[in-house]
Amino acid sequence: MELDLIAWLRKHLPPHPLLKLGIGDDAAVLALGKDRDALVTVDILTDQVDFKLGECDPRQIGRKALAVNLSDIAAMAGEPVAAVVGLVLPRQGGLELAKQIYEGLLPLAGKFQTAIAGGDTNSWDGPLVVSITLIGRTTSHGPLTRSGARVGDKILVTGSFGGSILGRHFTFTPRVREALKLCDRYQVHAAIDCSDGLSLDLARLAEASRCSATVDVDHVPISPDAQELSRRDGTPALEHALGNGEDFELIMAVPPRDADEMLADQPLNVPLTCIGEFGTGSGLWQRSARGLRQPLEQRGYVHRL
Amino acid sequence: MELDLIAWLRKHLPPHPLLKLGIGDDAAVLALGKDRDALVTVDILTDQVDFKLGECDPRQIGRKALAVNLSDIAAMAGEPVAAVVGLVLPRQGGLELAKQIYEGLLPLAGKFQTAIAGGDTNSWDGPLVVSITLIGRTTSHGPLTRSGARVGDKILVTGSFGGSILGRHFTFTPRVREALKLCDRYQVHAAIDCSDGLSLDLARLAEASRCSATVDVDHVPISPDAQELSRRDGTPALEHALGNGEDFELIMAVPPRDADEMLADQPLNVPLTCIGEFGTGSGLWQRSARGLRQPLEQRGYVHRL
Repeated sequence: MELDLIAWLRKHLPPHPLLKLGIGDDAAVLALGKDRDALVTVDILTDQVDFKLGECDPRQIGRKALAVNLSDIAAMAGEPVAAVVGLVLPRQGGLELAKQIYEGLLPLAGKFQTAIAGGDTNSWDGPLVVSITLIGRTTSHGPLTRSGARVGDKILVTGSFGGSILGRHFTFTPRVREALKLCDRYQVHAAIDCSDGLSLDLARLAEASRCSATVDVDHVPISPDAQELSRRDGTPALEHALGNGEDFELIMAVPPRDADEMLADQPLNVPLTCIGEFGTGSGLWQRSARGLRQPLEQRGYVHRL
Repeated sequence: MELDLIAWLRKHLPPHPLLKLGIGDDAAVLALGKDRDALVTVDILTDQVDFKLGECDPRQIGRKALAVNLSDIAAMAGEPVAAVVGLVLPRQGGLELAKQIYEGLLPLAGKFQTAIAGGDTNSWDGPLVVSITLIGRTTSHGPLTRSGARVGDKILVTGSFGGSILGRHFTFTPRVREALKLCDRYQVHAAIDCSDGLSLDLARLAEASRCSATVDVDHVPISPDAQELSRRDGTPALEHALGNGEDFELIMAVPPRDADEMLADQPLNVPLTCIGEFGTGSGLWQRSARGLRQPLEQRGYVHRL
């Protein structure tokens, strides 16, 4: 959500006895269960912003609309439970389009044991809007927030970054199982999913945790898509990796001993990489192979209102 | 949601161990708590369909977007807990518009102890879209569904019907407290809120309960707004009451003895009226003062895709 609006809302939203964590993290935490809390997150996808209706299969849109929400639940180390699906459809061919969107999201819902609990479907003279709200629940490890990183924690990431626009933003695997597995075996202090850009989302995690973050730029895992994009547009692949966004990989704060174990074990089907560490002070910094420390620009997709 | 899509979804949605009640009622029921279940409902409001941005105060839009969801929780006899707010804003003046929408919904959220737990805010070149998902929970009475009406139950309604377009669709009070109070004191078998039209929503309740419904048309409480609209357009006020929709009053199935008590007690700040009864067979019927029984047309707002 847009930063000015979040700041304004934080001033205007009263506390609530059942709301343990409100606006500003990947999902809200509600004290609805006895042992486990409920998690809630919403994402709205719109034509020409998150997809182009004429240029992709509507099934891809449905899949993505659910996947981005699953990624938010992953960043909280939660288990997905149920989704409600809001659709605003163009008047022409709306029913067929709705079915195709559901055909795209249902296999992913099945894979992640997510019930489709309800929805609202309207049609209008405007472009397609898909709004999915996902309900999850915490495990015995509790929710993983953005604010738990501590000075000295390592910055660990799953997978590789950049160039998701070439197709990965439709096909990525939300890191739900990966987050649960890591929290089962190791200590993880904080996490965020990379939706707007590695540097931008890392800066958000650092800020929420009142730490600085220093990135060893030579260690950032660069995706083949970022390399391909670099060949096409001449922009260094590292810049694509740091700023493109929609990678939906996990960015985590892990205490050094657990980080070492994770890196040695490599317990996931996707690589885990250490790209730096959290420190005192604030801001985002880069460190080159020669040890020079400089400010690192926060690049990424900023929602402007 | 649109009927063809609901039918298609019912065939394609697998069961889920935590989903007690899925698509097709006013809210879904999730087994998230120990003693109480969670309720989830979503409504998407769009410019030119549910409001006209240039012709109303944006605060009214925010209020309505939350109120229609509260009405769904009321129809399940639930307590609201938390809302997540999805906004798609026009690019010009989006931040101010977002604040005004929140200014409209926050007082209502406060009145109904509803936390604003999260949201997603985007901007685009299209018209305003407001998508609110509301999470509630059941009380010790359990959820009130559409399918519980029994042959012989009386049809009781709160308030009066018709002409809400004159302003009441923005200012109505969701019947959350009324539903809880009635379920505390009396037996209620089923309920639905009147969003699309009294005759249409009553027919849905009857169909879900595999009953017929017979309406004593002379007993239907007609709102002053319906009378006013009738003066303007020459359509009988009763027709407005039966078909306009957006009254957001409760339509309930109540066993005869409890119905008699409710009607004698009149325990609410809003009138309770008996407008007919559920019977064997199916369909919607009308009975005039002279006892003649005829089919009653289902009038209301049908979402077509």
